[in-house]
Amino acid sequence: MHKLRVIFDTDPGLDDAIALLFLLGARDEIELLGVSCVAGNVGIEAVSRNARIICEWADRRDVEVYAGAARPLVRHLVTAEHVHGKTGMEGAPMHTPSMALQAAHAVDFIIDTLRREPAGTVTLCPVGPLTNIALALLKAPDIAPRIRQIVLMGGAYFAGGNVTPAAEFNFYVDPHAAQQVLHAGIPLVMLPLDVTHKACTSARRVAALASLPNHCGPLAASLLTSFERHDVKKFGQIGAPLHDPCAVAYLLDPALFQGREVNVEVETDSPLTQGHCSVDWWGTSGRASNALYITEVDADAMFARMAQAMINLP
Amino acid sequence: MHKLRVIFDTDPGLDDAIALLFLLGARDEIELLGVSCVAGNVGIEAVSRNARIICEWADRRDVEVYAGAARPLVRHLVTAEHVHGKTGMEGAPMHTPSMALQAAHAVDFIIDTLRREPAGTVTLCPVGPLTNIALALLKAPDIAPRIRQIVLMGGAYFAGGNVTPAAEFNFYVDPHAAQQVLHAGIPLVMLPLDVTHKACTSARRVAALASLPNHCGPLAASLLTSFERHDVKKFGQIGAPLHDPCAVAYLLDPALFQGREVNVEVETDSPLTQGHCSVDWWGTSGRASNALYITEVDADAMFARMAQAMINLP
Amino acid sequence: MHKLRVIFDTDPGLDDAIALLFLLGARDEIELLGVSCVAGNVGIEAVSRNARIICEWADRRDVEVYAGAARPLVRHLVTAEHVHGKTGMEGAPMHTPSMALQAAHAVDFIIDTLRREPAGTVTLCPVGPLTNIALALLKAPDIAPRIRQIVLMGGAYFAGGNVTPAAEFNFYVDPHAAQQVLHAGIPLVMLPLDVTHKACTSARRVAALASLPNHCGPLAASLLTSFERHDVKKFGQIGAPLHDPCAVAYLLDPALFQGREVNVEVETDSPLTQGHCSVDWWGTSGRASNALYITEVDADAMFARMAQAMINLP
Amino acid sequence: MHKLRVIFDTDPGLDDAIALLFLLGARDEIELLGVSCVAGNVGIEAVSRNARIICEWADRRDVEVYAGAARPLVRHLVTAEHVHGKTGMEGAPMHTPSMALQAAHAVDFIIDTLRREPAGTVTLCPVGPLTNIALALLKAPDIAPRIRQIVLMGGAYFAGGNVTPAAEFNFYVDPHAAQQVLHAGIPLVMLPLDVTHKACTSARRVAALASLPNHCGPLAASLLTSFERHDVKKFGQIGAPLHDPCAVAYLLDPALFQGREVNVEVETDSPLTQGHCSVDWWGTSGRASNALYITEVDADAMFARMAQAMINLP
Repeated sequence: MHKLRVIFDTDPGLDDAIALLFLLGARDEIELLGVSCVAGNVGIEAVSRNARIICEWADRRDVEVYAGAARPLVRHLVTAEHVHGKTGMEGAPMHTPSMALQAAHAVDFIIDTLRREPAGTVTLCPVGPLTNIALALLKAPDIAPRIRQIVLMGGAYFAGGNVTPAAEFNFYVDPHAAQQVLHAGIPLVMLPLDVTHKACTSARRVAALASLPNHCGPLAASLLTSFERHDVKKFGQIGAPLHDPCAVAYLLDPALFQGREVNVEVETDSPLTQGHCSVDWWGTSGRASNALYITEVDADAMFARMAQAMINLP
Repeated sequence: MHKLRVIFDTDPGLDDAIALLFLLGARDEIELLGVSCVAGNVGIEAVSRNARIICEWADRRDVEVYAGAARPLVRHLVTAEHVHGKTGMEGAPMHTPSMALQAAHAVDFIIDTLRREPAGTVTLCPVGPLTNIALALLKAPDIAPRIRQIVLMGGAYFAGGNVTPAAEFNFYVDPHAAQQVLHAGIPLVMLPLDVTHKACTSARRVAALASLPNHCGPLAASLLTSFERHDVKKFGQIGAPLHDPCAVAYLLDPALFQGREVNVEVETDSPLTQGHCSVDWWGTSGRASNALYITEVDADAMFARMAQAMINLP
Repeated sequence: MHKLRVIFDTDPGLDDAIALLFLLGARDEIELLGVSCVAGNVGIEAVSRNARIICEWADRRDVEVYAGAARPLVRHLVTAEHVHGKTGMEGAPMHTPSMALQAAHAVDFIIDTLRREPAGTVTLCPVGPLTNIALALLKAPDIAPRIRQIVLMGGAYFAGGNVTPAAEFNFYVDPHAAQQVLHAGIPLVMLPLDVTHKACTSARRVAALASLPNHCGPLAASLLTSFERHDVKKFGQIGAPLHDPCAVAYLLDPALFQGREVNVEVETDSPLTQGHCSVDWWGTSGRASNALYITEVDADAMFARMAQAMINLP
Repeated sequence: MHKLRVIFDTDPGLDDAIALLFLLGARDEIELLGVSCVAGNVGIEAVSRNARIICEWADRRDVEVYAGAARPLVRHLVTAEHVHGKTGMEGAPMHTPSMALQAAHAVDFIIDTLRREPAGTVTLCPVGPLTNIALALLKAPDIAPRIRQIVLMGGAYFAGGNVTPAAEFNFYVDPHAAQQVLHAGIPLVMLPLDVTHKACTSARRVAALASLPNHCGPLAASLLTSFERHDVKKFGQIGAPLHDPCAVAYLLDPALFQGREVNVEVETDSPLTQGHCSVDWWGTSGRASNALYITEVDADAMFARMAQAMINLP
């Protein structure tokens, strides 16, 4: 069987950390070509450090980690320290990573990889603001037809927003990048809040990770416990939505998910609705579809898949 | 028991017709001070005629019907002939009404009534674009504190839009009016698509009206059958959402509904998201609440209430 | 010779006061049908009082003065106390007017007058925000073809803005009203900052008024001296632009002015450029012309005309 | 005397061609570090070819020419073939250039040069849309404090727009880039239409170039004659404004120009006013100044300077 070959673009972030551990645990199925970092949950220096810390938790100093955009295309950077803590991974055991950042810029890593690898073999999996992906497409429009597909976490429609009433965080932070990536003519799967809010932590699900007989399982469980705190306080929910891991789960097993091919447009201009996804769920707009918009997940199966992957970690 | 004293502002419209029949049937509980018409589903001449036709169906030539705004505050008028037919009441038996329109403008009727009646005794129930209400507030700011409350049908958040992916029809047609009415400091109840999509027609519910031993019950049933066609074709739903009758049901029995006091802002400027309601369901915005936003209804009870009212009609 | 029959719509305001005195002095040429007041330079109560004070300066208690809109169609009211003082006529001798405000709303006065008088005989001369005119057109679309023409003071293009870098005050305060009035299909003449900045006070011009052998001439001179202060301090100009009197001068003698038939659009949505006039001076837009946009004036002749009119006042 | 060290960013374009010849002729005073091309007047392939053709006219195959952004940050590319012809240099003798494009992307050339050269020694002179400059700042924020200054052609305020009534072409094409470059905290000089419309061609000025005893003088004269045609037809002007050469003239002799340190904001969101410069000429906004906005030029001296430089060319 061919492994999926993936560039993971991320702004860790507690749920990013879970997603990256999940991805590293699934190494028999996914070849991770590199990790490109982008400012989002916290600033570019913190996320670039955090990505390496996570790789080191998994004993994967061989993973190439690249720093990318320090701020969105147009807007000022908005971060989410109130969710992820000052370090971006509140509650996690932090250390100074021994592995170095790659010298090249994340945007050039993305471009060079796509130009080097056979067309149609590389999947992009961005789970933060889409700034790096948009910049790569701006700098090198020739890469668009070479991308196999983009599987991204971001956006919201039926679920309502999280950072504002109208918008999900990743799309809010860089709406211009999101709008451009959606219109680049690349096969695209969106994992929005509509689905991630159906993949929430529970005592049982966290316990399954906590009881793994390795280091990373209990570590992931503790990250989730830290992550939950914010959502429980704010939304009164039981459990926290596992946003970014949904994208990894989709890479591994699309059959766990259901959605619809629709047109999605992102609001870029209005301060009130910046980052809002106008999702044409009923085909009223006449606009051509540009994304597979996911709204359903078999959450139990997804959490099981995640535990099954993490058992491969140290 | 005091009757509720109500001005009904409307753009009939098939579901407006059901709502007005509902209201007329509930005359023991609601005193209808007058019907003010507004361009929306169809143009001002058609809605002003239709309102009188409906009153004549119910043998209520005594109801005062006023013509109001022919177009929104700022935008060009958008109508919904594709839903309600060219007449605005497709499938209904049309006739030339014998009762005359009142000479005064609907906006002046609203202003004069509120100035004349004791403060806090008059409820406004607008189920079309909010142009008349906004114009009345612009022309006579002194009426705002005299309004008991506004119970309106309009807006959408979790349900998604109907006229565009981002917006419900009434708020889309006159977003500037909606935004102003929401910020006039008047006690306000919103019946948005979030709730009206939970009050849909069904064979059983329509049959209950059809079997009423009068003229208006079967007539209402036939209007609903005509109204369903559009939604079934477009959304593949079973049944059509009874948008406007929800507002009347709320007037009669608020206990049938549940919602939350929240802040609601309406997008006025962006073409993509025009009319979108940014509803701060989780209190993330820090903006003060300005509406009771209804999301739940006991639909069976509501349909029963409607049949029970319509039995009073001829 | 037929007199021009004019409704003067105003928000006095120091230059409004000069304009109204100018108009009252020209009574042999202009029949003033009434003065409709609108919130702008100061609030609606102050401008409605000021208009009557000005009429009483001129011994014209017979003039009908109507109060109109207390705020713009959509935006919050912005006033210009920093220019016109707290009363709206800083430096003027204030008194409590003995003449009463008319009972009707200014918008109804405009509508009723246009419906009553023969079509094509009434000119509107608005020199404040265009709220009243837009409301009249919203409430009674039938009046549009009955208006002879609109001669308004407002807007700016080559001159740059005054209240913001992008906008002139009247268009900034109610951009939605301005955009609607410009697109109502009514013959329209604009006196923007482009021309009013070429009609500035000077020592000689003010002295000509001060030396008139009546009460109102020296009074007008003292108002101008008060008005100059702001512009001299802010723009370092010699003299202050006589914005509103330009509109009256145009009514009396269009030959003093030059302009071009062009398309003008008003920015309504962007906070940065709200109220900006996009004037298609070179016909690059392909949009149909909707205004005679005035850019040149024979200022000496205009000031002479003004002195000549004011000599008729007490 | 130290030579000014300059990166010239351009989209040739007829007036770009004149500007580049001017720059190459001034080699005793300016060291041209390279030419970075950007899509604007025509597409990226054409401008990258044209820049090399111009260098070859001047026998300067040693100049490094880099291709840059193929489209703006956010908007779709708008070009100006109606002004510059299909090739971008209508009326010019075209050939296939023998010199090659550099392999690196223009954005990386800009970044690498600024990082390599001593801080404060490199001036950027962009005369097209500001996409390359904005992308360089996005990818490498560390270069901002290393830039000596930016001397750009773009924008308009008192002059009105050229591509739309509200906007000058370069700022219209990429308003987001313009807004970002203006707010990067870099010393910045703007040569807008306000000044370039005061530096127009005339028979005498063109003749002075035509009579130069070399190849490039008469060639420049013929380009100007081709360039004039559009403006004469459209604006009825005598002569065409030499937009881009103004920036080169400013590099050589700032004393030829006058302007004011002001705040400039660029409209990015509204379709009507996209690319409009809100220039706070009178300091009414309270916003900090971010540009030296040039409005006056000694045009005779500038044309003389240009002829004097071009005499150095073959």
